[in-house]
Amino acid sequence: MSERHDYQRDGRAIYERSFAIIRAEADLARFNELERTVAVRMIHACGVVELAERIAFGHDFAARARAALRAGAPILCDAEMVERGVTRARLPADNPVICTLRDPRTPDIAERIGNTRSAAAMQLWEEQLEGAVVVIGNAPTALFHLLEMIASGAPRPAAVIGVPVGFVGAQESKQALAESELALPYVVVRGRMGGSAIASAAVNALASDAL
Amino acid sequence: MSERHDYQRDGRAIYERSFAIIRAEADLARFNELERTVAVRMIHACGVVELAERIAFGHDFAARARAALRAGAPILCDAEMVERGVTRARLPADNPVICTLRDPRTPDIAERIGNTRSAAAMQLWEEQLEGAVVVIGNAPTALFHLLEMIASGAPRPAAVIGVPVGFVGAQESKQALAESELALPYVVVRGRMGGSAIASAAVNALASDAL
Repeated sequence: MSERHDYQRDGRAIYERSFAIIRAEADLARFNELERTVAVRMIHACGVVELAERIAFGHDFAARARAALRAGAPILCDAEMVERGVTRARLPADNPVICTLRDPRTPDIAERIGNTRSAAAMQLWEEQLEGAVVVIGNAPTALFHLLEMIASGAPRPAAVIGVPVGFVGAQESKQALAESELALPYVVVRGRMGGSAIASAAVNALASDAL
Repeated sequence: MSERHDYQRDGRAIYERSFAIIRAEADLARFNELERTVAVRMIHACGVVELAERIAFGHDFAARARAALRAGAPILCDAEMVERGVTRARLPADNPVICTLRDPRTPDIAERIGNTRSAAAMQLWEEQLEGAVVVIGNAPTALFHLLEMIASGAPRPAAVIGVPVGFVGAQESKQALAESELALPYVVVRGRMGGSAIASAAVNALASDAL
């Protein structure tokens, strides 16, 4: 049976062509060049150019996140898929990439605080949180709880990638981050869209540029 | 600073409410009940109810994939994020979950066959491919190359989750799977959308129902 297909087999050419299509089709005019690099990779991760309309940056997010990564900041992830999506070879300072969702202490904390395991996992970040790059790609409860922890005196991260996905709390948690009096440097995707691939793509964009 | 937010903190309630919203908003009428379960989880993974219009099942995919999982079929994944997204505790037969992208042999194979590392990684599946559940959530080249391998005599998997994402080859590779004379049981997301979260969500839906 003949099933030879005609397709681009060069990984670098695929990336370059993909990014060119995104820059041609997506409306990135309101972003600065560094933000544009981040937005292009977030769009690349989901295949939807209209994501550009929903991406919002605040409080000098991109420059601050990049500087933090260069300074060796840990990357704290809410989900294992996010952690796995961060390309280690790109990281500018061999930055630690941490996910505490499967930490054996997490289920007990969840029961004690009356919240999800994703939220409970945040409590184990306190020692690494100061100046970290936080990446929430899955759970709205994690993002809400992070804001509560910082408002209650937990250390401040350098930047927050806040792109949880879904139908219950995702939109509201991202709005809470963007409007918070804490004024944390942030990127969000407004509405329901988001997810681990978009989250780790944002890290990879900033890390790549940081090399 | 007061930053106590009002949100649902019960994980089970969040899931139930999310699935109810998706079933109310998405047009799932053309699917059977098992397909509907798969489609709901795929939508849940990306936050886009309109994904339903792009999901296509063929050759009795859902029933065959479920039966294969129950029989202990290995789950072969093109990307580490897909592999990481498969919830092990749900699997009905402690199924092996395999990703060969980082296998030390993969870069040499890629050079030899003149294709991406994602495509090259497929070559290392030959021994597990017979009756397996294949999950392509990232690379169009992997899906194209899989079809070429099977057409050239490689063993047939039981079912293929073909949801690579992106702007170069994604749409074409999924169309090739759906139209292939190989008549493999498949699920695809037509067009550019797809990705590792949607891919592993399809596995988790079938595995969950299989318990």
